[in-house]
Amino acid sequence: MRENVIIDETLFASDLRVIAAGVPGFTDALRQQSVAVVHLNWQPPADGDPELVEILKRIYSDPHLITQIDDANQETIERIQNAAPEVIDISTAREAMGLSDHTISHAGPPIEWERMAGPQKRAVMGAIQFEGWASSNDEAAALVISGKVRLHPNHFYNAVAPMTGVISPSMPVLVARNKTYGNYAFSTLNEGRGNTLWYGVFDDGALRRLQWIRDELGPALKVTIQQHGPLDVFDIIAQGLQMGDECHARHTACTALLVKRLVPWMLYADVPGKTVAEIVRFLDANSHFFLNFTMVGVKATMDAAQGVPYSTIVTAMARNGVDFMLRVGGLGNDWVMSPVSPLDEAVYYTGYTVADAAGDIGDSAIIETCGLGGMAIAAAPTVAPFVGGRLADEIATLKTSSNITLSRHDKFRITTMDMESTPLGIDVRRAVETRVVPLITTGVLHETNATAGQIGTGVARVPITIFDHALIALARKWQLDVETATSVKSIRVDPVGVAHAS
Amino acid sequence: MRENVIIDETLFASDLRVIAAGVPGFTDALRQQSVAVVHLNWQPPADGDPELVEILKRIYSDPHLITQIDDANQETIERIQNAAPEVIDISTAREAMGLSDHTISHAGPPIEWERMAGPQKRAVMGAIQFEGWASSNDEAAALVISGKVRLHPNHFYNAVAPMTGVISPSMPVLVARNKTYGNYAFSTLNEGRGNTLWYGVFDDGALRRLQWIRDELGPALKVTIQQHGPLDVFDIIAQGLQMGDECHARHTACTALLVKRLVPWMLYADVPGKTVAEIVRFLDANSHFFLNFTMVGVKATMDAAQGVPYSTIVTAMARNGVDFMLRVGGLGNDWVMSPVSPLDEAVYYTGYTVADAAGDIGDSAIIETCGLGGMAIAAAPTVAPFVGGRLADEIATLKTSSNITLSRHDKFRITTMDMESTPLGIDVRRAVETRVVPLITTGVLHETNATAGQIGTGVARVPITIFDHALIALARKWQLDVETATSVKSIRVDPVGVAHAS
Repeated sequence: MRENVIIDETLFASDLRVIAAGVPGFTDALRQQSVAVVHLNWQPPADGDPELVEILKRIYSDPHLITQIDDANQETIERIQNAAPEVIDISTAREAMGLSDHTISHAGPPIEWERMAGPQKRAVMGAIQFEGWASSNDEAAALVISGKVRLHPNHFYNAVAPMTGVISPSMPVLVARNKTYGNYAFSTLNEGRGNTLWYGVFDDGALRRLQWIRDELGPALKVTIQQHGPLDVFDIIAQGLQMGDECHARHTACTALLVKRLVPWMLYADVPGKTVAEIVRFLDANSHFFLNFTMVGVKATMDAAQGVPYSTIVTAMARNGVDFMLRVGGLGNDWVMSPVSPLDEAVYYTGYTVADAAGDIGDSAIIETCGLGGMAIAAAPTVAPFVGGRLADEIATLKTSSNITLSRHDKFRITTMDMESTPLGIDVRRAVETRVVPLITTGVLHETNATAGQIGTGVARVPITIFDHALIALARKWQLDVETATSVKSIRVDPVGVAHAS
Repeated sequence: MRENVIIDETLFASDLRVIAAGVPGFTDALRQQSVAVVHLNWQPPADGDPELVEILKRIYSDPHLITQIDDANQETIERIQNAAPEVIDISTAREAMGLSDHTISHAGPPIEWERMAGPQKRAVMGAIQFEGWASSNDEAAALVISGKVRLHPNHFYNAVAPMTGVISPSMPVLVARNKTYGNYAFSTLNEGRGNTLWYGVFDDGALRRLQWIRDELGPALKVTIQQHGPLDVFDIIAQGLQMGDECHARHTACTALLVKRLVPWMLYADVPGKTVAEIVRFLDANSHFFLNFTMVGVKATMDAAQGVPYSTIVTAMARNGVDFMLRVGGLGNDWVMSPVSPLDEAVYYTGYTVADAAGDIGDSAIIETCGLGGMAIAAAPTVAPFVGGRLADEIATLKTSSNITLSRHDKFRITTMDMESTPLGIDVRRAVETRVVPLITTGVLHETNATAGQIGTGVARVPITIFDHALIALARKWQLDVETATSVKSIRVDPVGVAHAS
């Protein structure tokens, strides 16, 4: 087994006198006596949990298995690096995703109506009314409860969407194709700030915006992409990373680059000037617009990298405000599930606290599996307040995160770290060993207030339990003959399919 | 006199054993013996030059004078901080600047035709043909030599332009107004990369581009600004600084933000869609486009801050490839002159060396007097190769530069330095004392090759002599009764006026 030490970069930059490992109290005592001391951040692997330690021992002591895992992970990383996701069309969810009438899809794992998070419920009821299947929240809820409207996770349809992530059949969607591997992925068009379905708000303003997106923005973007040709998503992301975006919480640069890129083709496509003007003003006021392009590009990438037997790499993460689901390369279509972590590290807008917050929500956490977002946080010094306030805090965060990744993304580089590549390939084993979990840069929604929308922003942590359970699931799949009493919850997602809880 | 020590930030971050001041050889000797030693970068003020030391002594030992200087510098800084430059119109150089027929203006100080730098000569001859006053380089040169075409510096017309900076009457110009102080400034529309007049290249392609700028781009931008209203230059700069621009060598973000901002208004102004498309594609391919907006905004700012008696702050710098001129608050309209520094620190494109380079050129160095460009270099980690390759090198450069500035720009902040403000207010005295000179981020042009255009990019250093001469000029103005044998060259610029060498 490898040594389980978190590398602290300051360690070797100063004169060493005493190295204290393990219990911090010893370090503190020495410091109080003015003894120069460096605290080595050592802890027992997997917090000393006997089951997990036993699984890790079995893995690392089996040369044949290790080779299988290494080969699988290398194949997974290669597929991620070789991906070439392009937005090739704008279509409707009905046409592109096969989302049928009286079906709604949503962010995160499947969930019963009673357990669904407040904002996601409100978005579902809103989407039902947007489709004209009901004319009030009560009517809409009744349709769901009676089973007349069916709910499925976006991932069942090879789709992803941010926050509540609710998609209904007539909504326009981005159609992305992974040029290298030929697979498709889908996402909505970002609605922007304010009263919007993705923030769990449905009112007249939200409805009008959805209609405008369906009737004006979607069709205009469709002909624009036709005129322009396929849009290379990672090309814009790579530029955006050099311009202060980490490509999850911040897409200001990418959105500006998208406008600069697409406007000529929108005009060549004979979209009326006044419509183009309206669209550009909408994009100027919505710096998140490129978020959904990033998500759909990453989804098309990670889906092609998924499913290599014996891979221990995380290829997707998704939350619905209540439950978290995590996909691991070697677990096929069985996603491991656990409750979401509390959002107690977020920065809340004035008047709001974590007590108001819905749980961690959205399919957007797939971004972090591809070396972006929390895995590129130092690219965006303006979001440093998420992790302590200083660029140095962001860099330290990334260095910590890189303890659980196996590679670096060739295309994504961080200018503030002298063009270092971003950490890529979250390894379930390393997370279990080190107890380091990925940080997700995210927004926070109000749980109960129907009009508050976004109430904060910051980082969410992936629950460590989900990595423990993923490791146990791998051990069982590999028939490692370890006694594990732990009950692992998982959900099978056979896209395009139906959820079967197991 | 204050202590003349350059602060090295690493100094206090490590255990000190020996501090060696002055001669580096002593430090080296200790290091060879493995003795921990920190070299204190101390040198005698003004390199120990008796004249300069005497002037500095007189200044710092005269409390009344010091008060006058401090008050004047404070007033100067306040005027810079309070400036609100807006682009309010696009007009022609003829109308806006009063540039009459058979008159050409150019970057930097006035210069005789024989001494003019190669690229600037070629640009002048090109502009004459663009105006239709001649139909060949020879005819154009003959008009200049015979005095039938007159040449003046841009600064005579309250104008600035980058690189060769050549302006002829029919060219469209940005009209900026300092909303706070009511003064105006002017600059050209940036021609972009490739064969262009600002790079000293005039051929059919350059001519066609100038015609397109005059006939299409200029008029379209004019109606756009009319529709949009005044454009706040510093608002876009402040955003651009957070997106990887240092706003001299790099304007990628500012240009994208400008497109996003203006396109709707261009369409509302009924500019034909095909023209808008062509303009956006031109801007998409020309990341320098916002450079001239920055320049005109800074010019409008620094002109309003200029002329406070007793101010020792530099309010403009300009070069013509041969001579450098520097304006100091307390010297009124008398600009101090010296030869430009060699461009031996630039990064040259393959096949070119400093031997091919025209001298340091362009009015753009005014940018550094306002806390941008070289004074904001750490905002643009992508230009780190200019100063050593790493962000840490850029930060060190800024820390060194801040030894010669008196303040920080409230509006311009550097995300990579945890939102620290940029150094503002270059003090002639501090430059003379410390021998630290401002770095200018700039491009390099070919001296003799008529089609090579830009051959490199990097930093230029302001010649230290010009600060020494500025201090002597101030001492003489203040009648400090110091014996100075040094001959100080200056040029009087009474805008709009005529050059009188003195």
